[in-house]
Amino acid sequence: MSLIVMKFGGSSVGDAERMKRVANRVVETQKNGHQCVVVVSAMGDTTDDLIDLTKQISTETPPTREMDMLLSTGEQVSVALLSIAIHSLGQSAVSYTGWQAGMYTEAVHGKARITDIKPERVLDALGQGNVVIVAGFQGMTEEGEITTLGRGGSDTTAVALAAAIKADVCEIFTDVDGIYSTDPRVVKCARKLPEITYDEMLELANLGAAVLHPRAVEYAKNYNVPLVVRSSFNHNAGTNVKEEAAMEQGIVVRGIASDKNVARISILGVEEKPGQLAKVFTALAQAQIDVDIIVQSGVLHGLADFSFTVALTDKDNALGVIEGIRSEVGFREVTSQENLVKVSIVGAGMVSTPGVAAKMFETISNLGLSINMVSTSEIKTSCVIDNSRLNEVIQALHTAYGLDTDVQAFVGGPSDRR
Amino acid sequence: MSLIVMKFGGSSVGDAERMKRVANRVVETQKNGHQCVVVVSAMGDTTDDLIDLTKQISTETPPTREMDMLLSTGEQVSVALLSIAIHSLGQSAVSYTGWQAGMYTEAVHGKARITDIKPERVLDALGQGNVVIVAGFQGMTEEGEITTLGRGGSDTTAVALAAAIKADVCEIFTDVDGIYSTDPRVVKCARKLPEITYDEMLELANLGAAVLHPRAVEYAKNYNVPLVVRSSFNHNAGTNVKEEAAMEQGIVVRGIASDKNVARISILGVEEKPGQLAKVFTALAQAQIDVDIIVQSGVLHGLADFSFTVALTDKDNALGVIEGIRSEVGFREVTSQENLVKVSIVGAGMVSTPGVAAKMFETISNLGLSINMVSTSEIKTSCVIDNSRLNEVIQALHTAYGLDTDVQAFVGGPSDRR
Repeated sequence: MSLIVMKFGGSSVGDAERMKRVANRVVETQKNGHQCVVVVSAMGDTTDDLIDLTKQISTETPPTREMDMLLSTGEQVSVALLSIAIHSLGQSAVSYTGWQAGMYTEAVHGKARITDIKPERVLDALGQGNVVIVAGFQGMTEEGEITTLGRGGSDTTAVALAAAIKADVCEIFTDVDGIYSTDPRVVKCARKLPEITYDEMLELANLGAAVLHPRAVEYAKNYNVPLVVRSSFNHNAGTNVKEEAAMEQGIVVRGIASDKNVARISILGVEEKPGQLAKVFTALAQAQIDVDIIVQSGVLHGLADFSFTVALTDKDNALGVIEGIRSEVGFREVTSQENLVKVSIVGAGMVSTPGVAAKMFETISNLGLSINMVSTSEIKTSCVIDNSRLNEVIQALHTAYGLDTDVQAFVGGPSDRR
Repeated sequence: MSLIVMKFGGSSVGDAERMKRVANRVVETQKNGHQCVVVVSAMGDTTDDLIDLTKQISTETPPTREMDMLLSTGEQVSVALLSIAIHSLGQSAVSYTGWQAGMYTEAVHGKARITDIKPERVLDALGQGNVVIVAGFQGMTEEGEITTLGRGGSDTTAVALAAAIKADVCEIFTDVDGIYSTDPRVVKCARKLPEITYDEMLELANLGAAVLHPRAVEYAKNYNVPLVVRSSFNHNAGTNVKEEAAMEQGIVVRGIASDKNVARISILGVEEKPGQLAKVFTALAQAQIDVDIIVQSGVLHGLADFSFTVALTDKDNALGVIEGIRSEVGFREVTSQENLVKVSIVGAGMVSTPGVAAKMFETISNLGLSINMVSTSEIKTSCVIDNSRLNEVIQALHTAYGLDTDVQAFVGGPSDRR
């Protein structure tokens, strides 16, 4: 008998039929002799509908505390309905809100982090033979205020709860069969990965393979919670996410990711003196702008050029910040570039295998494309390139690293992100 | 400066526009120098929509605990949206669920009674200058389970909270201008009552004048909470509900109510021996059937006949119960009658004014109708009659007791019951 945490996202419980299908799946798992804790998100469009209501009521940005009061109802509806569906199959079940399940968070509305879990009620209810259903995405502060965890919050709820109750596994049910070597909508012969390490998953998640939220993966890594990402539409095996993952013979790259939300900013003719870079990046950090790849070119006549990438959505904001420190820093000009994409190859074994990055550069060059910026870490290499031929690049890299397979990927429906 | 509890029902907050109107009303009251606690119900059809969802999911009756989890979200949505609406008017506000506001109830789902109120959070937030918005209809058990209070629950929340925080008044906003001498949709010249006693209100509420829930009135009476029933559509004065209420010169009846949910059951030829009546009514009570008027005729040859009324919706159930004790009690036959209505005149001064009941019987007789059953109490007289000419009877009684007025009643919209 295993103790299993099963997480279903909003599209998996999007309507009454899907809710019933989830109930069947849970009861089947319970009947196979397991104990089940189920974490669910709000049904389909519930969150968007609630946000629309606030827009009809107020043109201003609503207080985040009240938004949490409002949005947390979405998951509460889901857990109650799922419990009713499970009861109708003859299985006892009990639903809990975040606060009832003992999910304590910091006092930050809209994107609170979990600070503590007191799972006694969950464990008691399990001990009495119930399926326990917990509202994802939400918690409570020590003062009894309702909070939400922000994007990917339900994944985080599931993983954190799995850690707290020492579950044997946390299964993340989604609309795809598992984690793929790259987006199967782009590369038809993408390979479903039987295993992947937490670190690789983090790189892939951060780079846009939006199946698992990075925060949840981080949590799983920190508490060593075994994850399985699998489809809610079939019983295929899915992908195991864990500390160490075996590589297939002859393969060194686990997957290929891309991120279109990228812009390059270059600051040219910066007076070369200590602390200049720090000034720029401190100012950007204070404006909550994340900087990704940073490249500094050589110094000429005491003037340096450097470039970095930010999220495309942060570009104008970043340019404003830099203008604001022009007199303090002293530079000739600032340029920026859109229409870029960051392509990355990820694989835990890369660091010990020579020539992996070289093959990436060569593959991109062979397509007649130039590489704008490069960054490398122990488990990934990223190149920023022009975005016009992205799919071609991904396909070529996928082939070059021996990842092509002839098994057709299963893609079930719209993506499922909360 | 007064401390005011304002209660708005589901139709008053039925959509974004109405929600904004309520927000304006609250802010206006606050600006007039009062402290406001607002209790709201779920928006319009929310509850029905949620119940429909459960029917799509399960053909069985869902567990009441899970229904409470589900339905309590309706009020939570309302309080958050109202808070957002009030914030957008520049007034600070804070919303609370039932459990956050310290509404403790017994552990009965679907129709819990309030056992205790710990209003510290509400008082703290008021002290900080906030409008405090509390979800009606819901509470929490000592064990942290979410409960709902059943029909009229939001009225009860408002009155109980008003008692707990020692509010100066509890204003119940509804879609009519106040309490009328009878239903203004039936009698165009119905009279809006400036004042009414708790006891009279209880009789009128129980008899179908569905503006205030009896449980809320009882609570108000027990804790001596002054109530005002008034329209959410205008600023008219409304009706004060209190311990003692003045009567206008020459008027002894406060109002006329009717109840169509009534059926008569007669048990004929019952063997006359001690304890027979007790057996019948104990069996009915055990089946949760309320018996209203009871009439026993004289005894002939050691056999008695008696009749009583039950809710029409309980009739078949009651007949089954009586068949079940046939051998134990011993009687000749059971008959029943539908198509009845109970008409009542209510007035606290009736007991000290001779001839009030006689005028009722005479008025009904003058219409050529016979009276089936009669019951009287200190403040009301009820007659059970054929239901075919109810409106005519009510109009005739209204005229006979001098209640007709020439001021047109204001009726704002659909009725508002939760």
